[in-house]
Amino acid sequence: MSDKDDRLEAGREIVRAKEAHGVTWAELAKALDRSLVWTTSALLGQQPLDAEQAGTVGSLLDLDEETVEALTFPPVRGDAALDPTEPVTYRLQEALQVYGSSLHELIREEFGDGIMSAIDFTLDFERVEDPKGDRVKLTFNGKFLPYKVW
Amino acid sequence: MSDKDDRLEAGREIVRAKEAHGVTWAELAKALDRSLVWTTSALLGQQPLDAEQAGTVGSLLDLDEETVEALTFPPVRGDAALDPTEPVTYRLQEALQVYGSSLHELIREEFGDGIMSAIDFTLDFERVEDPKGDRVKLTFNGKFLPYKVW
Amino acid sequence: MSDKDDRLEAGREIVRAKEAHGVTWAELAKALDRSLVWTTSALLGQQPLDAEQAGTVGSLLDLDEETVEALTFPPVRGDAALDPTEPVTYRLQEALQVYGSSLHELIREEFGDGIMSAIDFTLDFERVEDPKGDRVKLTFNGKFLPYKVW
Amino acid sequence: MSDKDDRLEAGREIVRAKEAHGVTWAELAKALDRSLVWTTSALLGQQPLDAEQAGTVGSLLDLDEETVEALTFPPVRGDAALDPTEPVTYRLQEALQVYGSSLHELIREEFGDGIMSAIDFTLDFERVEDPKGDRVKLTFNGKFLPYKVW
Amino acid sequence: MSDKDDRLEAGREIVRAKEAHGVTWAELAKALDRSLVWTTSALLGQQPLDAEQAGTVGSLLDLDEETVEALTFPPVRGDAALDPTEPVTYRLQEALQVYGSSLHELIREEFGDGIMSAIDFTLDFERVEDPKGDRVKLTFNGKFLPYKVW
Amino acid sequence: MSDKDDRLEAGREIVRAKEAHGVTWAELAKALDRSLVWTTSALLGQQPLDAEQAGTVGSLLDLDEETVEALTFPPVRGDAALDPTEPVTYRLQEALQVYGSSLHELIREEFGDGIMSAIDFTLDFERVEDPKGDRVKLTFNGKFLPYKVW
Amino acid sequence: MSDKDDRLEAGREIVRAKEAHGVTWAELAKALDRSLVWTTSALLGQQPLDAEQAGTVGSLLDLDEETVEALTFPPVRGDAALDPTEPVTYRLQEALQVYGSSLHELIREEFGDGIMSAIDFTLDFERVEDPKGDRVKLTFNGKFLPYKVW
Amino acid sequence: MSDKDDRLEAGREIVRAKEAHGVTWAELAKALDRSLVWTTSALLGQQPLDAEQAGTVGSLLDLDEETVEALTFPPVRGDAALDPTEPVTYRLQEALQVYGSSLHELIREEFGDGIMSAIDFTLDFERVEDPKGDRVKLTFNGKFLPYKVW
Amino acid sequence: MSDKDDRLEAGREIVRAKEAHGVTWAELAKALDRSLVWTTSALLGQQPLDAEQAGTVGSLLDLDEETVEALTFPPVRGDAALDPTEPVTYRLQEALQVYGSSLHELIREEFGDGIMSAIDFTLDFERVEDPKGDRVKLTFNGKFLPYKVW
Amino acid sequence: MSDKDDRLEAGREIVRAKEAHGVTWAELAKALDRSLVWTTSALLGQQPLDAEQAGTVGSLLDLDEETVEALTFPPVRGDAALDPTEPVTYRLQEALQVYGSSLHELIREEFGDGIMSAIDFTLDFERVEDPKGDRVKLTFNGKFLPYKVW
Repeated sequence: MSDKDDRLEAGREIVRAKEAHGVTWAELAKALDRSLVWTTSALLGQQPLDAEQAGTVGSLLDLDEETVEALTFPPVRGDAALDPTEPVTYRLQEALQVYGSSLHELIREEFGDGIMSAIDFTLDFERVEDPKGDRVKLTFNGKFLPYKVW
Repeated sequence: MSDKDDRLEAGREIVRAKEAHGVTWAELAKALDRSLVWTTSALLGQQPLDAEQAGTVGSLLDLDEETVEALTFPPVRGDAALDPTEPVTYRLQEALQVYGSSLHELIREEFGDGIMSAIDFTLDFERVEDPKGDRVKLTFNGKFLPYKVW
Repeated sequence: MSDKDDRLEAGREIVRAKEAHGVTWAELAKALDRSLVWTTSALLGQQPLDAEQAGTVGSLLDLDEETVEALTFPPVRGDAALDPTEPVTYRLQEALQVYGSSLHELIREEFGDGIMSAIDFTLDFERVEDPKGDRVKLTFNGKFLPYKVW
Repeated sequence: MSDKDDRLEAGREIVRAKEAHGVTWAELAKALDRSLVWTTSALLGQQPLDAEQAGTVGSLLDLDEETVEALTFPPVRGDAALDPTEPVTYRLQEALQVYGSSLHELIREEFGDGIMSAIDFTLDFERVEDPKGDRVKLTFNGKFLPYKVW
Repeated sequence: MSDKDDRLEAGREIVRAKEAHGVTWAELAKALDRSLVWTTSALLGQQPLDAEQAGTVGSLLDLDEETVEALTFPPVRGDAALDPTEPVTYRLQEALQVYGSSLHELIREEFGDGIMSAIDFTLDFERVEDPKGDRVKLTFNGKFLPYKVW
Repeated sequence: MSDKDDRLEAGREIVRAKEAHGVTWAELAKALDRSLVWTTSALLGQQPLDAEQAGTVGSLLDLDEETVEALTFPPVRGDAALDPTEPVTYRLQEALQVYGSSLHELIREEFGDGIMSAIDFTLDFERVEDPKGDRVKLTFNGKFLPYKVW
Repeated sequence: MSDKDDRLEAGREIVRAKEAHGVTWAELAKALDRSLVWTTSALLGQQPLDAEQAGTVGSLLDLDEETVEALTFPPVRGDAALDPTEPVTYRLQEALQVYGSSLHELIREEFGDGIMSAIDFTLDFERVEDPKGDRVKLTFNGKFLPYKVW
Repeated sequence: MSDKDDRLEAGREIVRAKEAHGVTWAELAKALDRSLVWTTSALLGQQPLDAEQAGTVGSLLDLDEETVEALTFPPVRGDAALDPTEPVTYRLQEALQVYGSSLHELIREEFGDGIMSAIDFTLDFERVEDPKGDRVKLTFNGKFLPYKVW
Repeated sequence: MSDKDDRLEAGREIVRAKEAHGVTWAELAKALDRSLVWTTSALLGQQPLDAEQAGTVGSLLDLDEETVEALTFPPVRGDAALDPTEPVTYRLQEALQVYGSSLHELIREEFGDGIMSAIDFTLDFERVEDPKGDRVKLTFNGKFLPYKVW
Repeated sequence: MSDKDDRLEAGREIVRAKEAHGVTWAELAKALDRSLVWTTSALLGQQPLDAEQAGTVGSLLDLDEETVEALTFPPVRGDAALDPTEPVTYRLQEALQVYGSSLHELIREEFGDGIMSAIDFTLDFERVEDPKGDRVKLTFNGKFLPYKVW
């Protein structure tokens, strides 16, 4: 089994352990002193963790040594980490399908020729209470990068 | 040429006319009394417009009659409206690739078994000034819908 | 093996056990106090089950502990659960291919701009006796959701 | 342009003409003495129409001669008639993705080795009023066909 | 390993055993009192077999118990059972590619709007001696099913 | 427009003309002194026709000169000529999917290492009357070609 | 025809005009006071040009007005601009295939967790004389962007 | 497990061992007396190594015998070695997407009809210090090969 | 229409003209003083031709000016020039599928680590008479290029 | 593991054993009294071998019993045996991409309507010495098969 598989498998172990121990993502984020989404994505395998961070999580969730080691393997950011046909994921992709060309135009008008970075980027997750049904609020925040002209 | 092509072509006409007339998306949104992102996506072809709304835009941008009529055709929300390999769009998709499984887990923990709607959904676009380089801020806000158990 | 594989494998174990014990899907539905289709899809892996529900099924079908635990893993709703080239499945997909654009138009005419939910959704299965050959009757029932305008 | 394109284009002409004349699919169905879904799919291009039927529709909607002739071309039942990424259509496909393996198992248990026909098949569309939001009800009804053993 | 893999693996075991024992498909067909093609496809995994039939084959070919049990698993009729790039298979597909549109037209002219069933269907295999080189003769025989009009 | 498009378009013209003139494929076959399936596939574009043959068909169906000329263009035998998702065609492909591995094994047992030719090949189409519903009978007849060993 | 097609077509016009007039890419670069590769990609459609720049090129190459206008349309940076099977392009892609994982590892070791920007990026093209056959030298130079941790 | 998997797995072992031992790619390159990029790609599996070279690396990194042997297996240069959706890799591919047609034109103008070799090819990696953020510099250097005319 | 389409269309014009004038590929090759295969591929669009060569062919085949000009456009060597499902082409691809891994091994044993060039490459076509049926003989001749080690 | 995997794995074992024992493909061909390419492809898995032939090879290369048995399994001629992105293989495919349409036309002109067989087919491999660099010469020789007209 490759590092990549090990890293993703470690993420699944964490989901299981976290539910067994009744620990929340927010508590794990606090233990690592990082934001909620960064922490979740790091533990599911998409951000690098050093040995100390891996150890902290291992202690909190009683993970075996192999899983703790796997948490320090390089992050998996390719599409192996995602099933685009899973219904929650699909709706996010559909939103991009419907609004993507608009975002492209709005960035072009407001900032000029360039992109919104997916690297110098943060993502926040929030529950918004609403009497007609609570809502999920996601905030994408990325630096504008202008195309270099040379 | 199909309605679909006509609707997308009308969107391209609007981009051209709006740049020729020096009109912004925000001004168009104000004329239609709608939000910035809804208006942009409607004029690019992803939301329905009635004859009055189409007429308002047509007057503002001196569009020909054919383009105004095309604006009232059914919206195009399938993937024909988007080029996923275009660099701005790709980075948004990459963000989903990297954070999608985290969002799935966070929704499951916070709300239970269900999805974030892409229909009862709003999207806001904002420029955030930053001395290290201005940033693009996108807010996705969708109603949580629980899976029905029957 | 991932949770996803475990959950789908548990579904296959149930099919085998249910045939060995001569138990029907209707009897399993009754034991869980749920509808026939919901129960079948839950046991095959597409709905969440809590420990009590998993235990009930485990007792009825003499499942081993590992299978019972796997039944409580998150549901698998992506396309890994389905082989679109399998002949029964294919005919359902072909029906959508033939009638899908009609359903889109009929919803648009009757309800306006929006979709039929696949989340606030029920599906019933019924055998209709017919002297020329019995028939399968499937009833899809989903809430209409209007696109938000903002 | 091929017959196939002509037939699909005729369907788009009908949608436009029907909205211009304020005619409903139900009225068109009545004029042809057929069911609502069959009529809609026939006019959009998925069922054969003879010259008399095409003429009836042509008179009702003031279609030009070319469109009336195109209505008599062979039906288009391949996937050219459908955009699977369009949001209404996608949710129907997702329902199959989630429930398809269950329907396969339920047919196998109830009827034995065979399929539900997509040819000896009817589909009904109905609006169900509901105080929590009206619902779309679709009834698929297909003959069971047992695999021949020889 | 899934039932599907087990069933296909059982087919490969049968090919090996049958060659080791010098048994022909025709002899196996006779033992099951079925036709040559049905028997071959059943033993390779595409038709259901009951415990008695599986036992008969098991005795004839000295199969182990696990393989005999696997023969009673549900048939595998999706595309996992076939490699379309294998040269024998490819030529059959090429024949469909070349003659498929003709068969469609001939069925439409002779029978009207409908299909040739792949379920109420038989297939025979025959060697035809020919001084210029013997020939393979395949007879496809399927019931015509007219599209229902409602 | 390429020769390929011209040849396929000529095929569509012939279908239209033949229905307008009430001529059958069998009558066209007789006029060309060829078999029914060869003739149909030749006129739809999959076999070469010389100027004399094209002229014969042109006279019988009152085709314009351009269509007659297009009939003499090289045959189109690639997959552009076929829509695999069209329901009649799909069922033939499904039959190959279900029985293809069996045909491979039966050819291997009966003839040895080789293939059934799709070039030295004939295909016959026949209607078989049956009180339970008439049937379509297709006979594929291809020369066995052994792999060369050198 | 869309802006995208217009922009790419303008690029092809420029190639033709430049060969007819005996003008080199280097001369065009000099006229625009930009680098060789930026200029070539801008004129082929991958960078934005303002009206003045378009006019300069138009005068140099005697382009018609329509082509000059098309040069000011938004750049085309999606994959429509490239044929990956074209032999020159393919070899560049093969180099990435062979060395891509190495570049990933070397960036990770040298810079840490991040990427090489394709936006704050320059590319130079140079001919290197060599007695054993001249060589093409390409220099990719992109800013390292560290993943944000938050 | 195939040689291919063994070779790629050996590459992953080396990454792990090299980090555990605090050895750099540059040190490994020096030990093999090869360039940095060639060495990295050889150790990750894309260049052949003889037993002596494998032994040198094995000693330096305390690799087990199996891994050392696997290093001498044939190189893996197909796409199995690369995940094109991984963000570092993707940006290199995007650069080709944006600049590929320009490189093709520049080679054609400068050298005539031919390609830049990916075989008689070197690639160098360099860190360029920059007060606005350090940069990655990659130098591709390949022999021009003219198409043979015969 | 792009240059690419123009160049391929010119190739089709040549096929038509050459058959109308009874000229063979060998005669065209002689007129251009090139080999048979190079000439055929050049005239079909895969090699560059200068104005003089284009004029020679134009005179021989009475081509119109537009076609003659199109012959001087850049060659089309990407996959747009080939239909891999066309039966003649498919068999060549199948031969590669069956023998490709052997050729790879034989080159590796005989020459070492490298490739057979497709650029410094010739291809000859020959008819070999044979009493059991004439044969096609194709000779591929490419320079061996060793991978550079640096 | 399937027969197919076993057969391909046996091929990899042979490559390893042959290098360990310093045996060439030519020596193996001589031992089997077959041509070089046939032998290589048979040992890599694309031709059938009987028990005697398998035994001969087994003795020569000290193969274990399991590998010898696997050599007698049915040949693997589908695309599982080939990686089309591997550089040696890719160049052969590119040659077909560039010259395929020419070969089709030359066969059509010289032989008429038909194909070059990939079954009654031989392939020879030869090293051609050349002061400017040795060359690989491959000779494809296949029987012409005319399309049957009936």
